[in-house]
Amino acid sequence: MRWRGDLSYSPSVRVLVALGGNAMTSADGRARPGDQIAAVGRAAERIADVVAGGAEVLITHGNGPQVGNLLVKNELAAAVVPPVPLDWCGAQTQGTIGFILLNALERAFAGQGLRRQVAAVVTRTLVDPADPGFTRPSKPIGRYLPAADARTMIEHGQVWQDRGAKGWRRVVASPEPVEVLDAPAVAALLAWGFVVVAGGGGGIPVVREPDGSLRGVEAVIDKDLAAALLGHEVGARVLVIASDVDAAMVDFDTERARPLGRIRVDELRRYAAAGHFASGSMGPKVEAACRFVESGGDRAVITSLDRIPAGLAGAAGTVVLPAARTRTRTAALTRTDER
Amino acid sequence: MRWRGDLSYSPSVRVLVALGGNAMTSADGRARPGDQIAAVGRAAERIADVVAGGAEVLITHGNGPQVGNLLVKNELAAAVVPPVPLDWCGAQTQGTIGFILLNALERAFAGQGLRRQVAAVVTRTLVDPADPGFTRPSKPIGRYLPAADARTMIEHGQVWQDRGAKGWRRVVASPEPVEVLDAPAVAALLAWGFVVVAGGGGGIPVVREPDGSLRGVEAVIDKDLAAALLGHEVGARVLVIASDVDAAMVDFDTERARPLGRIRVDELRRYAAAGHFASGSMGPKVEAACRFVESGGDRAVITSLDRIPAGLAGAAGTVVLPAARTRTRTAALTRTDER
Repeated sequence: MRWRGDLSYSPSVRVLVALGGNAMTSADGRARPGDQIAAVGRAAERIADVVAGGAEVLITHGNGPQVGNLLVKNELAAAVVPPVPLDWCGAQTQGTIGFILLNALERAFAGQGLRRQVAAVVTRTLVDPADPGFTRPSKPIGRYLPAADARTMIEHGQVWQDRGAKGWRRVVASPEPVEVLDAPAVAALLAWGFVVVAGGGGGIPVVREPDGSLRGVEAVIDKDLAAALLGHEVGARVLVIASDVDAAMVDFDTERARPLGRIRVDELRRYAAAGHFASGSMGPKVEAACRFVESGGDRAVITSLDRIPAGLAGAAGTVVLPAARTRTRTAALTRTDER
Repeated sequence: MRWRGDLSYSPSVRVLVALGGNAMTSADGRARPGDQIAAVGRAAERIADVVAGGAEVLITHGNGPQVGNLLVKNELAAAVVPPVPLDWCGAQTQGTIGFILLNALERAFAGQGLRRQVAAVVTRTLVDPADPGFTRPSKPIGRYLPAADARTMIEHGQVWQDRGAKGWRRVVASPEPVEVLDAPAVAALLAWGFVVVAGGGGGIPVVREPDGSLRGVEAVIDKDLAAALLGHEVGARVLVIASDVDAAMVDFDTERARPLGRIRVDELRRYAAAGHFASGSMGPKVEAACRFVESGGDRAVITSLDRIPAGLAGAAGTVVLPAARTRTRTAALTRTDER
């Protein structure tokens, strides 16, 4: 990956940082409370770097390992305590991860002499009850169980799939995010100067009933797709998708594998259509980056947690820019926008 | 209880409604998800009445039964999934109860033709690590266990007490709330016109470390005392403490038992000092009401969920007014302030 120039951003720009699961667990993927606090502390240091640069920052986060733990608790305590639905598990993780992120951000800000207030918002995301995900659930969640245990859960209305030697695993809908319903609260807090945590786990999925009221549904919304939507709704100019890889790769797992640096969204779409990105991992990140830029965002960056500041400066990661026909607009925001 | 006149409030006044546990569980005290949604729906109808009256509304809520359930899950799944500390359980309930309250409020508002936005905020409450509660924990939480099981938990550092025939029960600190740290976010959202849910379960208890950073602690903050503090911090004029009783009673459980109506805070303090209010139930509500009025609030109302609107209008509940020497101030806010 070679950079042909600085790709700086306006200090006062609004930036959404989407933290992946690795920002919330230890290197071995465990999610003990101490692991989570330590991992979130490292992520908060990089967020503080971005805030120190002058950006208005909004943070979303994943919650996969945490929800997995809650589902096991549901299952093992079901004889004594009523299990809670999957949407409640998501809400629970917004509480805990929001809580530890608030503490970690304040600590990191203090360490850099920054005086910024923080807030975490319970966030619901509207999905369509007619989304095909509900009729053909495919997102695996929770732990593997033997066939007999899975059968019990199937009798309780859940969908489980035979995954071979590892056992059976529950699958749920992963519907498209339609609207982040609590975006107005996020925007209000950003306008007051808060660094805001919102949209955890893609938001708590809800559907609108015929009478207009909202009801939680058992589903998992892709957190990066929800972040792209939330970023658009609150007028973020830059979306940073932070995970454990430095950049999106083409020809992944082959001898010709190479990371993508600066790239226009139409070109990235062509790579995606050619099947370069795995559906369960890089695929949704690339899709989210494309959607964000196509909906008017200036730039989306896919990079690793430690490279967030470098990614924002255009010196690391895959940086997705608007298609060439919007050159005039792009030129105003980037010093060098030609590859 | 006889009323000698209307005790109306300014429509644009900022009101904090503290919902008790009965607003979150079914009549039999159960906390299945469906029970919680139904109970919160009823509470939201009364909140909508207050909003319809023109007040700016902030809502706090209890979380006792919900935390109790989470502790059982922690315990029963401990061999498979790392247990989370008590402060995390509180954070989890802020997520779930915040979530269902948001949905219920929007539904109730729509039913009354109200167009108001809602938001739920993850809320931390600072406590003093030197609070005597930490050396002499006394607040019982979670379920009773046999002596042998309790001993295992004691070996893990918890404090459990022998409660006789029912078994052993864990006790934790119930420290004084010192500051509701996320009050600025609440105030910002109220200023934007949001109806805000915050301070659930008294807030997530945190202590400040010598380096200035915050750390969660295993404790339970009285939700009404925290509400009185939060109300003061965000400039609420009226605090409504809603539970399952219509008013505070003197000479409770005797033939002379009678409900208190309108009362000045100094007089109420004398009843409290004389031991009229039980320490585990009405005592903290009376203390919270007194503190709120003594810290500059115009009025605190102790009443049942269904009587919130009537209590605000001065037609139900125990209405606590400032001491007589602040008469001038009170007179401006109440039409009839003499008993």
